[in-house]
Amino acid sequence: MTSPDAKNAADLIITGCTALVHDDHEQIDFVEDATIVVRDGLIETVTTDDLADTPAAERIDARGQIAMPGLVNCHTHAPMVALRGIAEDLPLEEWFNDVIWPIESNLTDKDVELGARLACAEMIRGGVTCFADHYFSMDAVAAVVAGCGMRANLGEAYFSSQGAEGRERSLDFALRQRGGADGRITTSLAPHAPYTVDDADLAATAHLAREHELLVHIHAAENRDQTDTSLARHGRTPIEILQGAGLLDVDLLIAHGTGIVERDLPVLAGATGRVAVASAPRGYLKFAWPTTTPVRALRKLGIPVGLGTDGAASNSSLDVWDAMALTALVQKSTEGDPRWLTARQALHHATLQSARAVGLGESVGSLAPGRKADIILVDLSGPHTQPVHDLPAALVHSARSSDVRTTIVDGRVLMRDRELQTLDVAGIVDELGERMPSLIDRSHGRKIQDYDA
Amino acid sequence: MTSPDAKNAADLIITGCTALVHDDHEQIDFVEDATIVVRDGLIETVTTDDLADTPAAERIDARGQIAMPGLVNCHTHAPMVALRGIAEDLPLEEWFNDVIWPIESNLTDKDVELGARLACAEMIRGGVTCFADHYFSMDAVAAVVAGCGMRANLGEAYFSSQGAEGRERSLDFALRQRGGADGRITTSLAPHAPYTVDDADLAATAHLAREHELLVHIHAAENRDQTDTSLARHGRTPIEILQGAGLLDVDLLIAHGTGIVERDLPVLAGATGRVAVASAPRGYLKFAWPTTTPVRALRKLGIPVGLGTDGAASNSSLDVWDAMALTALVQKSTEGDPRWLTARQALHHATLQSARAVGLGESVGSLAPGRKADIILVDLSGPHTQPVHDLPAALVHSARSSDVRTTIVDGRVLMRDRELQTLDVAGIVDELGERMPSLIDRSHGRKIQDYDA
Repeated sequence: MTSPDAKNAADLIITGCTALVHDDHEQIDFVEDATIVVRDGLIETVTTDDLADTPAAERIDARGQIAMPGLVNCHTHAPMVALRGIAEDLPLEEWFNDVIWPIESNLTDKDVELGARLACAEMIRGGVTCFADHYFSMDAVAAVVAGCGMRANLGEAYFSSQGAEGRERSLDFALRQRGGADGRITTSLAPHAPYTVDDADLAATAHLAREHELLVHIHAAENRDQTDTSLARHGRTPIEILQGAGLLDVDLLIAHGTGIVERDLPVLAGATGRVAVASAPRGYLKFAWPTTTPVRALRKLGIPVGLGTDGAASNSSLDVWDAMALTALVQKSTEGDPRWLTARQALHHATLQSARAVGLGESVGSLAPGRKADIILVDLSGPHTQPVHDLPAALVHSARSSDVRTTIVDGRVLMRDRELQTLDVAGIVDELGERMPSLIDRSHGRKIQDYDA
Repeated sequence: MTSPDAKNAADLIITGCTALVHDDHEQIDFVEDATIVVRDGLIETVTTDDLADTPAAERIDARGQIAMPGLVNCHTHAPMVALRGIAEDLPLEEWFNDVIWPIESNLTDKDVELGARLACAEMIRGGVTCFADHYFSMDAVAAVVAGCGMRANLGEAYFSSQGAEGRERSLDFALRQRGGADGRITTSLAPHAPYTVDDADLAATAHLAREHELLVHIHAAENRDQTDTSLARHGRTPIEILQGAGLLDVDLLIAHGTGIVERDLPVLAGATGRVAVASAPRGYLKFAWPTTTPVRALRKLGIPVGLGTDGAASNSSLDVWDAMALTALVQKSTEGDPRWLTARQALHHATLQSARAVGLGESVGSLAPGRKADIILVDLSGPHTQPVHDLPAALVHSARSSDVRTTIVDGRVLMRDRELQTLDVAGIVDELGERMPSLIDRSHGRKIQDYDA
């Protein structure tokens, strides 16, 4: 590409696809028989012109496929795939206190690295090009992101029980790693939750976020119990606690928010920061929580609601496509309105709103010139997606993550025709399997934290 | 196989798999490193013995795969895949009256045949080996079943608005086609619903069912509105109407039942026939119905609850695997109990209970000697299903229908390594596409029935 002869050659040209784009009003639209030109990791153009004569280092014939912005997993704990299935059919408190937090006291950097590699393999195969991760040993995750080619927003989690050190380590990580992996890594400060991080630490976090222009990624109002407990103990909801700490005046990504209640809405409406919520509905059903993220109320306030999977130890998978379909279904059911959260709305959550939620609203989430070339190609030729009377519905309700054939990040093909290009699943699984006995051992009786919210 | 030399050879031997079986108490269990021997369309044995020297016409090396009973779609309208996506984001009444029933007045045998072929392709690829179909032009569906190798229970639908002719045609179909396709076809009488079939026709149906030993497959108490309307008009719930007609004293498959209410439970408890309910939860969410099938209450009565997808025009897919996962999730959420409807329970619904629901409880639904060799092989080596700390949870909550690699009915391989052996999807889609304009035309202003329930 840098030789004089190929100076004008595009890096990648995708031809013959139907491209999912956003119109001037940000509505989902489709361009048939589209050609997408990628240069220097960016989308140069999405056009119906015939560019058969334009030189390109690589061409992908995508006839019969849909090109979409890559999916964004707005809230996960990627390395927890190592614990997939370890604690099934339990309420949240037992899940945390009896299984997850005891096991996490065993975590090593190597476990985190292997978990992150497996998670990235799963996500790339599911059409996820970017994920917002909130976990421990995040330098190991950053190294995996650098190696596998994905994009990520990474935050080192902390509790107040760790003292000032936790918060300092989170800041150090965020400053040291941001801009890494050729700019594919952005970072956030990652306080765990209002029930594990005290008001002083939350206020200090808000201060640091403003000073260093960092996103804050936090669990809050995860479920209604947490809101009720917070009201009983502090007279304030978790959202009001965030407000009191100044966190609504910085860029803030709130995970879950199924415990957001009516009195929180004016509080959120008064936020001066870019506040977003990540919804991961599968886990809420699995934990039998009484409510889900109040998407309709949040949208009325203009708050973006991105899609996420949470960790695989609760959600069973990192399948953002499934989160998209389930969000549409659960929102219809919760609101008692079959006309609400249409397939087009679900696709808007999965694209621009998810990009905004992780602080990348200007650079990913849309197939438009100048945006990062994070693109997936989806095959709708299978019998389960035919015929296509309604393309948004076919994508959201009939297609599955396994219909993603090609995943591209920054113009680089990470999966081609379902084959991963940068990760070796069998090798990762073998290596992880060897470490498993010591990882899941709970005989020591330790745990990293108590759940009491 | 019929030559003297091969007289003792098995037809098919599957080696090295983990086999999902049922123990003496019908609980889900697993046999590791199992070998399954198939002869004359039946499972001869499931063993851990080494049968490397046993001759077989065909061997499948299934190391690393899970062998399960094929899934049963207990309630669908297979040919409606032709209308997938045609009526999105609508309440049931508009869905029926404005779109589906006007379009269905255009249906020809050829449309039904093509729809059924596409549906069978989708189901075989999703690990479904048997389906209970309730539709029109069912001779065309029977011919497709015969050709593609699936198993099915088929019923010709009727409304009282058709006069006695509808019921007679349903009976004629049931008697003429039963035992067809080398015994793979069983049949049922298929009155549409208590709100479209009057009491006299329902009573006549019960009489015919008893006389001819036929299953009756009917929609009833589909949603709470129908129950409320029935109570207001007749002073009886739909379930009480079925009881009054004698339909609880024959073998009865009730589709949906999300409108089954407290007062119906003693009525169902008093049933003398083999009564079962098919639950298809995705559509209930999509139509924003306020309730789902009361699985826990039905199980307390010992009533089998099978899994289904309904037609793809409402459900978007015929993905029974998805119905299995969604049943677990929605039941936990509805009951407010994360410990309820475990993955093992979901697998029990998907296997023996579904087999019983369609009247095949003695012949399919379990990998046991003497049962039909309806077997699927599921690959759990993908990154989204690893590691496997909990095999039932991995199957229900992490695996997807796309992880089914091999589908076998009556010992015949219908899909091998994801490749369909008996159906050509591209050809079906092309042919269906040509017929689409006349199929979906609603300019005539007719409809086959009014929805007013």
